[in-house]
Amino acid sequence: MERQLSSVEKLKEKIEEIKVAMMVTVEPNGALRSRPMATRLLDAEGNLWFFTNEFSGKVNEIMNDHDVNLSYSHPDKQKYVSISGKANLIVDKEKMKQLWNPILKAWFPDGLEDPNLALLKVRIIHGEYWDDTASKVSQFVKI
Amino acid sequence: MERQLSSVEKLKEKIEEIKVAMMVTVEPNGALRSRPMATRLLDAEGNLWFFTNEFSGKVNEIMNDHDVNLSYSHPDKQKYVSISGKANLIVDKEKMKQLWNPILKAWFPDGLEDPNLALLKVRIIHGEYWDDTASKVSQFVKI
Ligand SMILES: Cc1cc2nc3c(=O)[nH]c(=O)nc-3n(C[C@H](O)[C@H](O)[C@H](O)COP(=O)(O)O)c2cc1C
Repeated sequence: MERQLSSVEKLKEKIEEIKVAMMVTVEPNGALRSRPMATRLLDAEGNLWFFTNEFSGKVNEIMNDHDVNLSYSHPDKQKYVSISGKANLIVDKEKMKQLWNPILKAWFPDGLEDPNLALLKVRIIHGEYWDDTASKVSQFVKI
Repeated sequence: MERQLSSVEKLKEKIEEIKVAMMVTVEPNGALRSRPMATRLLDAEGNLWFFTNEFSGKVNEIMNDHDVNLSYSHPDKQKYVSISGKANLIVDKEKMKQLWNPILKAWFPDGLEDPNLALLKVRIIHGEYWDDTASKVSQFVKI
């Protein structure tokens, strides 16, 4: 448990200043697509939470294959994080209220009133990070 | 042909200031992994070139499934690019000489003398980019 918590905390520190992940999903034909996603929460159990439209392409792709990759990268700071996880669609009004942030209005102008608003919960299976270009070996975060 | 060239040029402009892509590959169990990779060239035919160790994890993964995603992201500039492509391992001494850059010594200390040095050529199938967080709709680069 100790180890589990500290892994989450380490990861939190890494992604905190990046926030926007590129979320990669698998299309039915096997092609890999990504799009920027604003991270709303990394919870103590090692799940990452995002807002989504319930009827978006990525949700379709996730229904077909739950595997996702989240990459957080910041070339100027030479910080790179790769997270392999399983994504699930969650429709939970309470949780949405808790995680809502006005900045999300850019993508969801109707906010919490949007009937198609939903959450994506990504259970982290495996994480790696790179801190500077000189390090050849990546370090691990196993949750 | 005109259109093709201009798509490549548009893409070049987008990724030029980012350079380091997160390259996502598919593991045999379906998990998606990514790692930072220094882009060496976007050629006129719409292929992206990278150096790799011939016996690395990513090459194994690509042998099993050629689909990759390359995401270029720059949070401070709010620039994000997603490229879906097919990767192939290329062993070509001439091409390696042409694309080599001393900066790669960080990962390949023996440089062009490294017997396991090889290239990854990613044929771009589809590209999308986002220029600022306010734009909900992504634009397309089809090569
Ligand atoms: C900024 C940066 C650029 C990198 N560029 C390359 C590269 O061009 N080629 C490469 O093989 N590894 C590169 N690496 C190391 C890879 O990210 C990775 O750790 C290594 O290739 C092993 O990956 P694999 O085990 O998944 O195959 C780079 C690392 C960093 C931090």
